[in-house]
Amino acid sequence: MAEEIVLIDNDDPVLESDFIKEMVRQMRAVDTYGTFDKYSVAQILEPFILTKEMKREIPIVGDPDEIIISRVKAFYNAIAALIEQECGLMATTLLYLSYEGFGRAIITVGKLVIVDRNLRDVHRFGFQDLSKMKDEADKLLSVAIEIVGKYSDAAGM
Amino acid sequence: MAEEIVLIDNDDPVLESDFIKEMVRQMRAVDTYGTFDKYSVAQILEPFILTKEMKREIPIVGDPDEIIISRVKAFYNAIAALIEQECGLMATTLLYLSYEGFGRAIITVGKLVIVDRNLRDVHRFGFQDLSKMKDEADKLLSVAIEIVGKYSDAAGM
Repeated sequence: MAEEIVLIDNDDPVLESDFIKEMVRQMRAVDTYGTFDKYSVAQILEPFILTKEMKREIPIVGDPDEIIISRVKAFYNAIAALIEQECGLMATTLLYLSYEGFGRAIITVGKLVIVDRNLRDVHRFGFQDLSKMKDEADKLLSVAIEIVGKYSDAAGM
Repeated sequence: MAEEIVLIDNDDPVLESDFIKEMVRQMRAVDTYGTFDKYSVAQILEPFILTKEMKREIPIVGDPDEIIISRVKAFYNAIAALIEQECGLMATTLLYLSYEGFGRAIITVGKLVIVDRNLRDVHRFGFQDLSKMKDEADKLLSVAIEIVGKYSDAAGM
């Protein structure tokens, strides 16, 4: 039997960050059947972690399923929610994905595109560990806030 | 037998407009099998015309098929191409559609959203006549050019 690997520590300090809290909120928002009701935060976010070994076991070419797509949405929606909190303007996410898992994720504020990401291999969407995931979000977030500040008139401020 | 209705006149002056020429170019671009090779311009654009009587015969609820979606894409791509010609900057189209035919069409230039349309009932996509179609495109185009002019720094000019 495979030994159980702990992907996220229950006392990881990253779990206390705003981004992770928002991620959990987004995941719970799409949890229609209450599957997550008794899950810990670490358990809810575990599917986002994909270590190198796990990644290696997934075929390079594959079609993303609904569950993975909902995770990608949750990730970008969480970033949009944080942008909203930060600048007080509504941010909307737009995710375009071909059935093969290629596409583009966009977040807009007013008339401004503040996040613009080409997506590929979405069937292997995941992060090496929780802090890598937070780093990625923080990076997108800081660029986004910078763009809003720079072109605040187009953002509608 | 149903009598043949001419939806587009072969000598309609609108056929000479830049927008219509671009529409034909876009339709030919996705015509992998050369089906349109012997078609006249009017024949290529005929599927875009949906008179009130024709619309009434289509069920209100329905799922758009690939062919209709490719027409919606051609319409927005043609607008993007004209924007490019007008302002010399690359314009990209992003079409997000649920399988039920609801969604959003976006055209961006640089960091600027210049066309932002909510789409619904895409299975009934079409225009009453050719000049209505051109009017619609002209309207989107002039708003887009105005936005680029207003926020030219965010557009990357």
